[in-house]
Amino acid sequence: MPYFDAASSAPLHPVARQALLAALDEGWADPARLYREGRRARLLLDAAREAAAEAVGCRPDELVFTPSGTRAVHEGIAGALAGRRRAGRHLVVSAVEHSSVLHAAAAHEADGGTVTEVPVDRMGRVAPGAYAAALREAPDGVALACLQSANHEVGTLQPVAEAAEECAAAGVPLLVDAAQSLGWGPAAGKWSLLTASAHKWGGPAGVGLLVVRKGVRFRTASPADERESGRSPGFENLPAIVAAAASLRAVRAEATAEAERLRGLVDRIRARVPALVPEVEVVGDPQRRLPHLVTFSCLYVDGEALLHELDRAEFSVSSGSSCTSSTLTPSHVLRAMGVLSEGNVRVSLPRGTAEAEVDRFLEVLPGVVAEVRERLGAPRPAGAEASAPAPEPELVVDSLGKRCPIPVIELAKVIGDVPVGGVVTVLSDDEAARLDIPAWCEMRGQTYEGERPAERGVAYRVRRRD
Amino acid sequence: MPYFDAASSAPLHPVARQALLAALDEGWADPARLYREGRRARLLLDAAREAAAEAVGCRPDELVFTPSGTRAVHEGIAGALAGRRRAGRHLVVSAVEHSSVLHAAAAHEADGGTVTEVPVDRMGRVAPGAYAAALREAPDGVALACLQSANHEVGTLQPVAEAAEECAAAGVPLLVDAAQSLGWGPAAGKWSLLTASAHKWGGPAGVGLLVVRKGVRFRTASPADERESGRSPGFENLPAIVAAAASLRAVRAEATAEAERLRGLVDRIRARVPALVPEVEVVGDPQRRLPHLVTFSCLYVDGEALLHELDRAEFSVSSGSSCTSSTLTPSHVLRAMGVLSEGNVRVSLPRGTAEAEVDRFLEVLPGVVAEVRERLGAPRPAGAEASAPAPEPELVVDSLGKRCPIPVIELAKVIGDVPVGGVVTVLSDDEAARLDIPAWCEMRGQTYEGERPAERGVAYRVRRRD
Repeated sequence: MPYFDAASSAPLHPVARQALLAALDEGWADPARLYREGRRARLLLDAAREAAAEAVGCRPDELVFTPSGTRAVHEGIAGALAGRRRAGRHLVVSAVEHSSVLHAAAAHEADGGTVTEVPVDRMGRVAPGAYAAALREAPDGVALACLQSANHEVGTLQPVAEAAEECAAAGVPLLVDAAQSLGWGPAAGKWSLLTASAHKWGGPAGVGLLVVRKGVRFRTASPADERESGRSPGFENLPAIVAAAASLRAVRAEATAEAERLRGLVDRIRARVPALVPEVEVVGDPQRRLPHLVTFSCLYVDGEALLHELDRAEFSVSSGSSCTSSTLTPSHVLRAMGVLSEGNVRVSLPRGTAEAEVDRFLEVLPGVVAEVRERLGAPRPAGAEASAPAPEPELVVDSLGKRCPIPVIELAKVIGDVPVGGVVTVLSDDEAARLDIPAWCEMRGQTYEGERPAERGVAYRVRRRD
Repeated sequence: MPYFDAASSAPLHPVARQALLAALDEGWADPARLYREGRRARLLLDAAREAAAEAVGCRPDELVFTPSGTRAVHEGIAGALAGRRRAGRHLVVSAVEHSSVLHAAAAHEADGGTVTEVPVDRMGRVAPGAYAAALREAPDGVALACLQSANHEVGTLQPVAEAAEECAAAGVPLLVDAAQSLGWGPAAGKWSLLTASAHKWGGPAGVGLLVVRKGVRFRTASPADERESGRSPGFENLPAIVAAAASLRAVRAEATAEAERLRGLVDRIRARVPALVPEVEVVGDPQRRLPHLVTFSCLYVDGEALLHELDRAEFSVSSGSSCTSSTLTPSHVLRAMGVLSEGNVRVSLPRGTAEAEVDRFLEVLPGVVAEVRERLGAPRPAGAEASAPAPEPELVVDSLGKRCPIPVIELAKVIGDVPVGGVVTVLSDDEAARLDIPAWCEMRGQTYEGERPAERGVAYRVRRRD
């Protein structure tokens, strides 16, 4: 049963399992105690810290274990902001950070701080010089900047080394969220803080890493605690920490070969999906990307129905479509990139994924997409439209109350009725339409003329170009 | 090898190990995802929450899993204080709470809040009516009160049900830290919030419980997160959560019989230690106490040396003596009780402790204590003092720069030199002396006349009574 959602949580690496079992027997006692069980636990903890620090490329005393990647991010950002409070209260993040970073930024704003979101291009990549510009134009002294090493939804690698240089030149520490990439290799450049999450590389749940370079001002926001240099309160989750460190070392040993193999499989998906499925946009940087992750969006497809059908066909994938989110808004990453969000599928291959599984996915996908489109009454693929009935001079499509992808399907159905050069207006109150109608226009060579508030919802104007 | 420090961390219960292994295979995926691996993880999480809630005696939607008991305490206190900010900024705690509670209280004070510490008696127990009095006398509106179900250092049970009633009458929520007792049974009374820690009952590290009753005002202090009702951010540590819930159910099934058995063994220690070892004070309530825990302090003994010798004899115990703490201050619990802290030993028996292990401990202990006393040049047991040299009218013992238990040993050595009714002054800069000199006076029937600052350190005056 092919599980293609490693970017959410990777299956446990065999080394992690083995180390966890051993540490359950040897590492259940309190490492702060002086008796033999405590000393044994302390040795395991010290060894795990050294192994993790070596993989990160830092000193062991710069690294603490946290209960999750999310907590590492929350506490890293809060601690760095508090430590640099005198420098100012401005925070710079990219628009495509993980939600944990954006939530920490929102908490900072709620607390009276200010935040700049650095935009990305259509590949999801921050432009060189963008961090320097954000630092220059900040309304207040900048306390901290954050940039992910690689995007978790589209796989695009970020120019971390360049951003770190730009930050260093401005005297601002850079926190790198390396959650998606640490299993593949250390983060580049001279960052100041780094966070990661063990269950993303095949380690167990319950372990994050927070690295704070010596000399970086840091003041822990949580109540005092003697464990983990005072930076991560609570009894250490030692068996999981041991398993996390052991599996990080193990995945690193396999990383080069496995990255090459998975890159080949992802290249196959990137090349074949647009050939097999009409009206697909593969998103994210085709070159500078994570080896195991590819994302594409299918026009006229309901993401939730697509995931459900793929699950029935035994493929587990995730989606940034609005209908798959609890808030019914499309992924902030796809939104920041300005790409299509409807019918979105993220495939992230765990280590060891068999070629045959990928091939079967490519076999199954076209039928599944076609079935979902059929069910929704989507228009036939481009160039195969039925001949149009009598045109109207100024067409209005009322899609109020209808959810993604229906507004775009209705737009596509009537565009043939509009004379070339004529305009169609789509009324929609679905948040995804704001992203998907312009994206559809770009994909189909139509002219998007903008939006304006309507009596109910928003009116989106599209001019037929051909 | 007898491990007698269950109150620090209990060895993993076999059911916890078994459940953890099963959940490693079934529960590594993201329970928020809709595909089969995610649904399977969600089922495990829901079942664990129901089992834990049943053991606590609350609704499943009132309980969230946190990464540790410490985090449950920190986040429970911060959330309750934030939720009741309008009611006031005063926090009431007992003086013998776990350090996680006191650290959260200190953080609240640093943030501008106020705190009352409710004192305890020589048994370590809060007096009935003490919470009502603290609420009445609070300088500001009281947002929250905290009381442990049982003390972690001396085992004394607290009057939680009474305190909950006193708090309810004042309209103040009571948070009960049930870390030491939840494995033995649910917390009594109508508390509002409850915290616990799985590795204290034989569950794995990495899991705490935070229960917030419906209707209790609560505002999570950490950044937004969709997991665990927004009260505990980060990817769920699912295998450990499953193991925690399964082991809680398992230890509860054995609790009545095992409590009775361990209570018998602890009674034996409580009765035999003072008979076998001279100059010992057994502390904590002899009746209203945890079944598996007993604490005693040995005069003229260095706690660290005692622990070291017991470890050599293969007994793992802990201590509240200043010399075993990283801050070189005696346990705040012993200090609040006003009992002797030097040569302190806490024995907390894990489930399944064999009678023979306890007997062997009682065999070994007298020799170990005698050896440590011998090495320190401690006076012979009471009534066996050597005849004194010529007395001086006003004796001063300079113990500056000497650590616990040396100042008390030097005091004991010269007290025979002081004429009955005469005074000896001990100069000491060791924090433990403040507690141990008065405690020694009480044990030995001497009159403690108080302290005053000296040119260096503190001068402690003791009048010879007999």
